[in-house]
Amino acid sequence: MNKKELINSGKVKSVFTSDNPDEVIIEFRDDMTAGDGERKEVMDNKGSYNAIISSKIFKVLEENGIATQFIDLPEPNVMVAKKLEMIPIEVIVRNIATGSLVRKYPIADGTRLDPPVVQMDFKADEYHDPMLNDSLIKALGIATQEEIDILTEKALKINEILTKFFADVGIILVDYKVEFGKDKEGNILLGDEISPDGCRLWDSETLEMLDKELFRKGKDDEVMAAYIEVYNRVIPDDEKVI
Amino acid sequence: MNKKELINSGKVKSVFTSDNPDEVIIEFRDDMTAGDGERKEVMDNKGSYNAIISSKIFKVLEENGIATQFIDLPEPNVMVAKKLEMIPIEVIVRNIATGSLVRKYPIADGTRLDPPVVQMDFKADEYHDPMLNDSLIKALGIATQEEIDILTEKALKINEILTKFFADVGIILVDYKVEFGKDKEGNILLGDEISPDGCRLWDSETLEMLDKELFRKGKDDEVMAAYIEVYNRVIPDDEKVI
Repeated sequence: MNKKELINSGKVKSVFTSDNPDEVIIEFRDDMTAGDGERKEVMDNKGSYNAIISSKIFKVLEENGIATQFIDLPEPNVMVAKKLEMIPIEVIVRNIATGSLVRKYPIADGTRLDPPVVQMDFKADEYHDPMLNDSLIKALGIATQEEIDILTEKALKINEILTKFFADVGIILVDYKVEFGKDKEGNILLGDEISPDGCRLWDSETLEMLDKELFRKGKDDEVMAAYIEVYNRVIPDDEKVI
Repeated sequence: MNKKELINSGKVKSVFTSDNPDEVIIEFRDDMTAGDGERKEVMDNKGSYNAIISSKIFKVLEENGIATQFIDLPEPNVMVAKKLEMIPIEVIVRNIATGSLVRKYPIADGTRLDPPVVQMDFKADEYHDPMLNDSLIKALGIATQEEIDILTEKALKINEILTKFFADVGIILVDYKVEFGKDKEGNILLGDEISPDGCRLWDSETLEMLDKELFRKGKDDEVMAAYIEVYNRVIPDDEKVI
């Protein structure tokens, strides 16, 4: 496993080529950003916690029939993954109404959403990730109807698996976003990461936030404690590497 | 036909009860607004031109199998219509990319959209008419999936009919919005209006604008000439009442 050429440097991850042309090396950096990247701080070991949590979740999903990009985690903050052509859509699944949903629409904060709400946003920073619908996705050439249906089905299946996974460790999966990509055979695989960066996670008892929302709210000094709490709950002791 | 009690006063129309409990009287006022109603001017006879154009279009749609709210136009600016419980959705159909679409998404102004793009916005001024998707429409209790499918199908059928109707008088139907409501039997009927207020209409030869976009762009002194041009083209001489 040797990092070679930098392919892409995102807000919090860097993607490199590897010796294997079908694989990439993903480095989870310690950067934390909010507001389209307008605010940025460095948080000690944040990259490692996210990479370990995300790897664990991808393995759980694989065991439950969801194909993912994950291959290995050779270092705490370095993931070896299948090379994907990413689909520029953030698929957002919401089990409880909060955040932008209650600001944009007349629905009370905390409303249970059953069935969950599925939303697709266009990953395009310069356009501020605008919301899409099926008709727009097709008109913009982002995905076909068949692909939209696959993304929706996979996102909802992931929701079922992870709602239970988190509930078992006393965490409510409030909402989350996932991203998908295509491997060289054209299969749609889960990519990117599933971590406290892109999920709202609430303690089941106290309802306290255990995710990046703390950073968005300026509670920078509480963020890493929350990420470590998630890490401690979802990673069994014999799998803890940091 | 006697206007009785005022039921609802919108930005440009007032709706009254009539002697018949299943009917309403809709007065098209001469007001013109833009920017969520922030800018408002009075334009001579604008209400009449819109009411006459809209009545004509509703009659054309009825002849082509689209049930509408329209019953009669006893005065140039006064429509008698079936009473509907309106569904708070603006169904927007776009044949050419322009306006908010090209501001919000990476698509070139003037791009032909085939199939047309269908978008549904939530009629809620205090939330600035946010865009919806099927999942949100159901979660917010605005409509069922069956109703969403009916709205989409009707909006696209209307598009076919009106694209030809306008092309026959040298006008390109660029985009438009329609609203629907339910009669007392629960049938979904086209309601509101279809006029230069809610359509982008371009002259087929010169591509000059013949709709409210002129007002949005501050060309207030050109607006009524454009509306009258549409009126002159779509209303046969023997049907002209003003």
